[in-house]
Amino acid sequence: MQIAVVGGSEAAPDVLADAEATGRALASAGATLVCGGLGGVMAAACRGAKMAGGLTIGILPGTDRSAANRWVDVVIATGFGEARNALVVSSSSAVIAIDGEYGTLSEIALALRADIPVIGLGTWSLTHPDGAADVGIVLAPSPIDAVAMAIKLASPGSG
Amino acid sequence: MQIAVVGGSEAAPDVLADAEATGRALASAGATLVCGGLGGVMAAACRGAKMAGGLTIGILPGTDRSAANRWVDVVIATGFGEARNALVVSSSSAVIAIDGEYGTLSEIALALRADIPVIGLGTWSLTHPDGAADVGIVLAPSPIDAVAMAIKLASPGSG
Amino acid sequence: MQIAVVGGSEAAPDVLADAEATGRALASAGATLVCGGLGGVMAAACRGAKMAGGLTIGILPGTDRSAANRWVDVVIATGFGEARNALVVSSSSAVIAIDGEYGTLSEIALALRADIPVIGLGTWSLTHPDGAADVGIVLAPSPIDAVAMAIKLASPGSG
Amino acid sequence: MQIAVVGGSEAAPDVLADAEATGRALASAGATLVCGGLGGVMAAACRGAKMAGGLTIGILPGTDRSAANRWVDVVIATGFGEARNALVVSSSSAVIAIDGEYGTLSEIALALRADIPVIGLGTWSLTHPDGAADVGIVLAPSPIDAVAMAIKLASPGSG
Repeated sequence: MQIAVVGGSEAAPDVLADAEATGRALASAGATLVCGGLGGVMAAACRGAKMAGGLTIGILPGTDRSAANRWVDVVIATGFGEARNALVVSSSSAVIAIDGEYGTLSEIALALRADIPVIGLGTWSLTHPDGAADVGIVLAPSPIDAVAMAIKLASPGSG
Repeated sequence: MQIAVVGGSEAAPDVLADAEATGRALASAGATLVCGGLGGVMAAACRGAKMAGGLTIGILPGTDRSAANRWVDVVIATGFGEARNALVVSSSSAVIAIDGEYGTLSEIALALRADIPVIGLGTWSLTHPDGAADVGIVLAPSPIDAVAMAIKLASPGSG
Repeated sequence: MQIAVVGGSEAAPDVLADAEATGRALASAGATLVCGGLGGVMAAACRGAKMAGGLTIGILPGTDRSAANRWVDVVIATGFGEARNALVVSSSSAVIAIDGEYGTLSEIALALRADIPVIGLGTWSLTHPDGAADVGIVLAPSPIDAVAMAIKLASPGSG
Repeated sequence: MQIAVVGGSEAAPDVLADAEATGRALASAGATLVCGGLGGVMAAACRGAKMAGGLTIGILPGTDRSAANRWVDVVIATGFGEARNALVVSSSSAVIAIDGEYGTLSEIALALRADIPVIGLGTWSLTHPDGAADVGIVLAPSPIDAVAMAIKLASPGSG
């Protein structure tokens, strides 16, 4: 099972700690980690996954494979810029969003559009045009819970 | 100047009326309309633009050009699925978001990620992970105002 | 009807003259010109189309719209690099290939893969793995003939 | 090092035997196999790689991961159709082309466009517009040689 961890390329220490714990828990559960391949939350999650002996996939925006963080095993160098976010999502059965900026928000939206479950750890909150608050994202209280929820909710038809 | 109108492929009558008025105002202002090429808000905006003699571009998710609504002049048939949302945004100097579902949310996020201004008409509301509410989207009180704001804020470097 | 003209971003004077004549003939026939939006054959074809009052579409590899040649009316700024070649092809009912390098070859191949007819003017020649020579590309003796053949062969289901 | 094997989704028995031998030799050399993830040459190459304990990556045209052949370890489900061919190439340091149809030809062209070496085993032969025959593709006499040549020529800056 392939599960994505999405978040910013820069983040505060507590966010990075959550990302690392998420990556470690994913690998411990036997899941392959998919991410955008760069720094910040992506690098921390990959580092965590490698601590637990997991496999990591980095789907880069550019074509230069050396841009991948050092904990990425498989590098997909797309040259697609931010449109690569669609690939991070479509290659995953569930998405764990940690903190993040607009790029992360696009991954959350693309996942929800494709009926791929999104689990949130201190990430964006969405209010629908009809006024409904907190739609789409399933909130997790901790990295361990986020991983358990991602595996439970994982879309059988994708990722 | 190319400006995008994004919104759902199904929408309520008042939303469709806003989309049509937006398309008409864009064409009256001399802007080319960019959209996802399908129905609902996209078709209504194109219809409005053609009423005012404008040029319309539809960037389709599939490869079948006959999926475009009848008011699309230029059809870009991508075959990229929802990743075509990135193209709608990157080909525009500003984005007007009207109502919408998760696909629209992805276009809002991709635009903000690329520093392309987003003007909202009854669309999503975003709360940042740091707790800041209503970030990113500039709210417009009417279609006419949305178009005026889009033209004023239009990113000179893109679209 | 949208028809693509593909060729190199640098070319000899006689090749550029052919490209210009092709663009002019396409516009005279009422077809919209699709191309990669840059210089060389692309610019010459667009210039020819504008001489005859046609509409031109440039699908750029980058996200900077100012990279488009001055005769492009509609700019699709993809940010997809050479993968934008797939879009040039999928948005066209026929492809006219003039001279060209490897990028042009990729457009020829992607068109043939999608059953979109390719008309050649002094372009690549392909020998199939089974040994069959000159497969796929329909040779045209002149720009005027190339345009007539493109319109006649144009795939009804695409572009 | 990631190296692509490209070829048709249907192929004759001797072609499939070459593909399997190529995959096996790549894995024995410690390279990760990248391919389009489907049947024919792709499946045979993956099967060979798994026989030798290698890692395999399948970059699918669609979004349904179950379309991957059973020997694919990492599935990238793109939803990009044939434009996914650009990803197969950009994620590889060298490309081995075996037999193939127009999709394979597009991968050859995209690789050469990006200065990624292409090694050929009974594949397309290209005649440049200037008349030069057999350009671009380095011919290999056997799968073992193809792998040795791919590793030797592998582009350090990519894949």
